[in-house]
Amino acid sequence: MFTKEIYIARRNHLKSTLKSGILLFPGNGEMGMNCKDNWYPFRQDSTFLYYTGVNIPDVYFVIDVEKDEEILFGNNPTPEEIVWIGATTPLEELAAKAGIKKVKPLSELANYIKNGKQQAKVHYLPPYRSETTIQLSELLDVPVQEVAGAFSVALTKAIVAQREIKITEEVQEITKAVNITAEMHTYAIKNGNAGKTEKQIAGDLQAIAIGGGGNISFPIILTTNGQYLHNHATENLIKEGDLVLCDCGAETGMGYAGDMTRTFPASERFTTLQKEVYTIVLNAHNSAIDALKPGILFRDVHLLAATKLVEGLKGMGLMKGNVEEAVAKGAHTLFFQCGLGHMMGLDVHDMENLGEPYVGYTDTLKKSTEFGLKSLRLGKALKENFVITVEPGIYFNPFLIDAWKAQGKYTDFVNYEEVEKFKNFGGIRVEEDILITKEGSQILGNPLAKTVADIEELKNA
Amino acid sequence: MFTKEIYIARRNHLKSTLKSGILLFPGNGEMGMNCKDNWYPFRQDSTFLYYTGVNIPDVYFVIDVEKDEEILFGNNPTPEEIVWIGATTPLEELAAKAGIKKVKPLSELANYIKNGKQQAKVHYLPPYRSETTIQLSELLDVPVQEVAGAFSVALTKAIVAQREIKITEEVQEITKAVNITAEMHTYAIKNGNAGKTEKQIAGDLQAIAIGGGGNISFPIILTTNGQYLHNHATENLIKEGDLVLCDCGAETGMGYAGDMTRTFPASERFTTLQKEVYTIVLNAHNSAIDALKPGILFRDVHLLAATKLVEGLKGMGLMKGNVEEAVAKGAHTLFFQCGLGHMMGLDVHDMENLGEPYVGYTDTLKKSTEFGLKSLRLGKALKENFVITVEPGIYFNPFLIDAWKAQGKYTDFVNYEEVEKFKNFGGIRVEEDILITKEGSQILGNPLAKTVADIEELKNA
Repeated sequence: MFTKEIYIARRNHLKSTLKSGILLFPGNGEMGMNCKDNWYPFRQDSTFLYYTGVNIPDVYFVIDVEKDEEILFGNNPTPEEIVWIGATTPLEELAAKAGIKKVKPLSELANYIKNGKQQAKVHYLPPYRSETTIQLSELLDVPVQEVAGAFSVALTKAIVAQREIKITEEVQEITKAVNITAEMHTYAIKNGNAGKTEKQIAGDLQAIAIGGGGNISFPIILTTNGQYLHNHATENLIKEGDLVLCDCGAETGMGYAGDMTRTFPASERFTTLQKEVYTIVLNAHNSAIDALKPGILFRDVHLLAATKLVEGLKGMGLMKGNVEEAVAKGAHTLFFQCGLGHMMGLDVHDMENLGEPYVGYTDTLKKSTEFGLKSLRLGKALKENFVITVEPGIYFNPFLIDAWKAQGKYTDFVNYEEVEKFKNFGGIRVEEDILITKEGSQILGNPLAKTVADIEELKNA
Repeated sequence: MFTKEIYIARRNHLKSTLKSGILLFPGNGEMGMNCKDNWYPFRQDSTFLYYTGVNIPDVYFVIDVEKDEEILFGNNPTPEEIVWIGATTPLEELAAKAGIKKVKPLSELANYIKNGKQQAKVHYLPPYRSETTIQLSELLDVPVQEVAGAFSVALTKAIVAQREIKITEEVQEITKAVNITAEMHTYAIKNGNAGKTEKQIAGDLQAIAIGGGGNISFPIILTTNGQYLHNHATENLIKEGDLVLCDCGAETGMGYAGDMTRTFPASERFTTLQKEVYTIVLNAHNSAIDALKPGILFRDVHLLAATKLVEGLKGMGLMKGNVEEAVAKGAHTLFFQCGLGHMMGLDVHDMENLGEPYVGYTDTLKKSTEFGLKSLRLGKALKENFVITVEPGIYFNPFLIDAWKAQGKYTDFVNYEEVEKFKNFGGIRVEEDILITKEGSQILGNPLAKTVADIEELKNA
């Protein structure tokens, strides 16, 4: 239960960090698909939700830190609009639920900001929708092209420091999302069979997320081409023998996300080879989770997982040479091109719009620019009550294999002759959502089949 | 099958209408939900699809009418992007499928337009996404605030005249969408029972649309509050005795839409009263369809349906007085606040972004500003091969009833004392998708239960 005390405490904490200025939070509007009024599902800005809980379009929130004034700007529907949409909860009531005492019409926002910026700096976060960019340009009298660059680093850092630590109520809400996500996976494993299209399964998974009261937290990856990391469901028919990679998540009505991955056979059982690669990935996954605790650099956990993957691939004869050296030089990135995980919360990649330099790294720990590590969204030291994902994988990407073989890249560590045989194998990823605890970590949500044996049992149940 | 000849013919027709100028068609980009890269499902601009068939983000299409030059501007993925997304169909191949001979990198667009606009007028359609507005502002060196107002009326009119007439292949594709839509309704009628939430059913309907290869063509209306015209599915529990109004549609992978409405009981049977009102709506629906033919003003068909509704409501004792006079004065709008239907095609409200003055009306037939008629999207004379919806309804809106009763509005025609009893009744709408033929009209798609008897039979099958 997100009481008004929670929202008040969040805002008080932010005010005590910033100490001065006017904090301007644009809410999101409706977003047209093929015309202005045929809308995508409404998604409120996550930071807006975090400080206000107000989950409706076309509202702005302002905190004047010095005056200690908090105002929700927005319009209640006109009598004519009520004819079309029925009665809605009055803004005053929504504001009161979050302990916000003032509500003003949206038409007063421009003057409020115009006057306010004479007296104090106006802070805002990096905008990610063009609509918001145009609005900020008009409100602040800044050219459209300069809006993005003029966001407040101080506000961004303060909010990251606050949002990255999850309170009990947030963990409960994320757990709810994870449990719906696990239902989606249970369905996918049982029903992701030969003869169906990827989209048929993906549609059914979305139905489970919507039925759970929210929506999907990101576009569903349900694919027999798991070797491509961002491959969304297509009209491809699933065939016997295919490996199906399902990476999906639900978000709750409040906007908290789940994000899990399972890889399973379209047929009743994994092949021996599929089982072998799967076991390597699962071993890396478990080793990474075992290493999680406050204080450890997530970059180091990522490299530990990479080490486990290389050990396994070496055991299969796909890699060779010294394991630590292979990882240090990045040879594992032929198979594991991306990062081990990311923060999770009100966004599936939590606070992605605030920027990885602030969310995943620090002033002293900067993100690497090397292939592989440059895709690691989170590198910094973990803290108690972070919620993160752990999602190692092995991806046999035929384009990359061909390119690097032709370039003679990593020939000290890669047996290309063996790797060639896996160009049609696909990809495997295993992902859980995890809370960092005082001593270590805790996987969130109800257990979902993860070993080869458990997945095969669920598949054939 | 949409051959390249179809696309070539469409463009040639447009060129022969415009005769001069540079026609600039911005494709849509990906659209972030809660950050830039967590995307809503991609939806290409419909006019872009109409002339190019190219269904990918971040492309522009230009027709230089005088030079008779057609260019698709866009970028093939870089080798690194291929690592993440796999191989995609090259732009050159996509262009060739539509008979477009030139492809250039997106980076060349700005200079092309800069040079081109020295020599000829650049025509573009009204933009509906802020992203496009900003792009057009930069390309054409026009302030963001002035972009929308400077769209080309000549191009808009030419495209409306072309897109409103559906060719055989389009009717087939719309029929495919309608058939998937009918499957959604069949499911809703059978499963829209007490004890489920509106969102649970809506999620399942979306799964059917996605499984059909495309997506929903507009946000699903699945509600026990059908009296509010734009009421989307909520967490409301459906109860015994409720009327459930379902207004939903699938769009095919190509982007053609379906859009149907059925209203059905949550319980096994309609109540006597529900049956009575339903029959009035269905009678108006059938009478309107019977009147459809080339040449007739759709506004007149709308008023005919209104007349049938008033006759029925008078029979029930809810209205009184002279029927024609009641309709002429707008008394029916207490129960039927909106329009009878709209154009349908690549958009569910076809060409909505091009503007109702062009799509639904003419230079001589302007839209009324009166309550009711001002919500009629289509008023002009029908032509052979229009595809339209017919969707009359009766909506007992408690806010409107209270307001008009208090104002003493239409007391010559409304028995408020009787109407008061219906303030918790809800709303009923029945909608089909219809092709205007040479002699009359044809309902598209496989038949779907529509009479009281057929709906009850399907519900209990």
